[in-house]
Amino acid sequence: MRSVSIIGIGETKMGRLPDKSLKDLIRDAGNKAIEDAGIPKESIQALYMGNFNAGYWSTQSHMGALASETLGLGTIPTVRTEGACASGSLAFRQALAAIKAGMYDIVLVGGAEKMTHRNTEVVTTGLASAADVELETALGATFPSLFAMIANRYFHEYGNVRKEMAMAAVQNHENAMLNPNAQMKKKITIEDVYNGFPVADPLTVYDCSLITDGSVFLVLAATEVAEKICKHRLVEVIGSGHGGSALTLAGKKSLTTFESTIVAANEAYKMANLKPSDIDLAEVHDCFTITQIINTEDLGFFEKGTGARALAEGKTARDGVKPINVSGGLKAKGHPIGATGLSQMYEIVAQLRGIAGERQIKKADIGLTQNLGGSAATCVINIFRGR
Amino acid sequence: MRSVSIIGIGETKMGRLPDKSLKDLIRDAGNKAIEDAGIPKESIQALYMGNFNAGYWSTQSHMGALASETLGLGTIPTVRTEGACASGSLAFRQALAAIKAGMYDIVLVGGAEKMTHRNTEVVTTGLASAADVELETALGATFPSLFAMIANRYFHEYGNVRKEMAMAAVQNHENAMLNPNAQMKKKITIEDVYNGFPVADPLTVYDCSLITDGSVFLVLAATEVAEKICKHRLVEVIGSGHGGSALTLAGKKSLTTFESTIVAANEAYKMANLKPSDIDLAEVHDCFTITQIINTEDLGFFEKGTGARALAEGKTARDGVKPINVSGGLKAKGHPIGATGLSQMYEIVAQLRGIAGERQIKKADIGLTQNLGGSAATCVINIFRGR
Repeated sequence: MRSVSIIGIGETKMGRLPDKSLKDLIRDAGNKAIEDAGIPKESIQALYMGNFNAGYWSTQSHMGALASETLGLGTIPTVRTEGACASGSLAFRQALAAIKAGMYDIVLVGGAEKMTHRNTEVVTTGLASAADVELETALGATFPSLFAMIANRYFHEYGNVRKEMAMAAVQNHENAMLNPNAQMKKKITIEDVYNGFPVADPLTVYDCSLITDGSVFLVLAATEVAEKICKHRLVEVIGSGHGGSALTLAGKKSLTTFESTIVAANEAYKMANLKPSDIDLAEVHDCFTITQIINTEDLGFFEKGTGARALAEGKTARDGVKPINVSGGLKAKGHPIGATGLSQMYEIVAQLRGIAGERQIKKADIGLTQNLGGSAATCVINIFRGR
Repeated sequence: MRSVSIIGIGETKMGRLPDKSLKDLIRDAGNKAIEDAGIPKESIQALYMGNFNAGYWSTQSHMGALASETLGLGTIPTVRTEGACASGSLAFRQALAAIKAGMYDIVLVGGAEKMTHRNTEVVTTGLASAADVELETALGATFPSLFAMIANRYFHEYGNVRKEMAMAAVQNHENAMLNPNAQMKKKITIEDVYNGFPVADPLTVYDCSLITDGSVFLVLAATEVAEKICKHRLVEVIGSGHGGSALTLAGKKSLTTFESTIVAANEAYKMANLKPSDIDLAEVHDCFTITQIINTEDLGFFEKGTGARALAEGKTARDGVKPINVSGGLKAKGHPIGATGLSQMYEIVAQLRGIAGERQIKKADIGLTQNLGGSAATCVINIFRGR
């Protein structure tokens, strides 16, 4: 199989952006990525576009074609991928397969979501469509309630980690203070989290990721092509994994170990021939604070049931042994659903290139992204090495 | 690159199916395809799922995971693809790339759409999301009006083919009479088409494809694996192409030659090392009658401007030199958006296996499918050979 590398990255500011349409976001991030790669538009052979639910929030489907026309890419093939909050990483995964198959040498991968123009009810209904409508949403479940159940089950199995969940929020907010593209620039305390607006016990509003407008694009190339044209430190995709599990909570074997992550991690580590301890830094899917703790365990960074303690001990801080979500994560950088997985990759590439400014990690040679969809019914993991 | 073959097919009845939920449709077609392949579910390594707009019509996104749990497929990776009416063929195309890349050996490709439970306004708004919302839909355009403009432009460039458009509808209705899964079992005349409810001049309701509930699944395998386990005539994917063009009508170079088809056809014919004259039969995207005529020209079956005459001369009939849409097409078999491209392939596989019953074509060794999305902003073409 051919190797694939990232040669260009572009990201918009994340946040409530009333002056920016979907097309504006796509134009901004897409052109940045192409400029960063330093290639003519004519060399792009295909576009893979992650979007979760513009069909509902903006009655705009067919986002691959929309993005291609917006960026002036002519007659190249396009496809939109969707797997709830993992939609962006799924676009990346399809692009990877196509280059590996020899179908294309240089492709553009993008993600975009526009959410803040709709009211809370419409946003929540749209988000809840990532769960099982018949068996969960129609019964009143939304994602905070589903992940609150996961948190309570975690407490039951491994002890109460309410404080460490709050610490995850505090840490991610701190990291976001150093990220110019982050949505939430607000230092918070553990007390702030405890006293936040209650959403679904034990989660308060500070345990929940954000509603975000934003877009991210990446330029991918077959590594043998990338070696000739890349203007930056080459970031190679050395591992990739994709797993699933039941869509419903009721169908899962465990609420505190996400099978989809286990499957995807095994595949990605095996392909990269690496162990969890080899990873310098990771962006993991912190849709809720409990999710970050579970993910760092499922990824093998910490033993099951010890993720919270590791976080409390500072192991996941920017200067810890395993920096997690130095971008600020979904929690504070923002969570523009269809772009989120690509935003995780944007951060890893920036860190591996050494251009992450004030939040730059000292040793950044191997980075990992983990992106979940729904109640972890989809997981995509990628491992990157700077060369 | 590895070769890929189809070893299992399953299709629901198409139509207004008020007693069938999305999950029912998926369960029906998915299990049929797996049974037809004669493989244990455990051997399926990934699921690619085409769906256009369940997020809008049923507030159900994340259809890959939904389908996987519905079919009991465990922790396999899933992804939903969307590119308007080409969503199903896009799922197929991603599956093809993954097998060619060596990522998987046996995968399931599915498509499903549930539309008839919503009223006409909601269905139309959902469909119109496949166009550019800012520049077309918001100005009042829907797909019948966009394709009416295409028809009128075709009349301007090549002469009035109103009668031949009606003949396309008559022919597809005749074909559907012989297809047990077809939605519309109704013989019509040219006069019926002329006198049909006017939709957008020159299109009457008989020029338009149907609103359909339905699902189709296919089991794909690397050919070297398929050769060992396939219980039927092996149907190999010998050509595949994917092209794009501007999403908006205003952005297109031509309204009467679809660039996306030209790009995809060139790629597919080149890969198959075949000419248009080598194709025994084809299922082409007849979302409207004018589209079928344009497509048979763009695919190289007939010279530009002569597609209507070829149809009138019987060349595209079941006993003609180039049978087109022997299934009944989108016009009469039905158009369950996310499943449509796969339904085209279902027909070709059935014909190549010689199990198409009363509508069986005599010489069926090489078949082609052409599936458009939006105003032809997306086109996926595949060529199949029975071995």
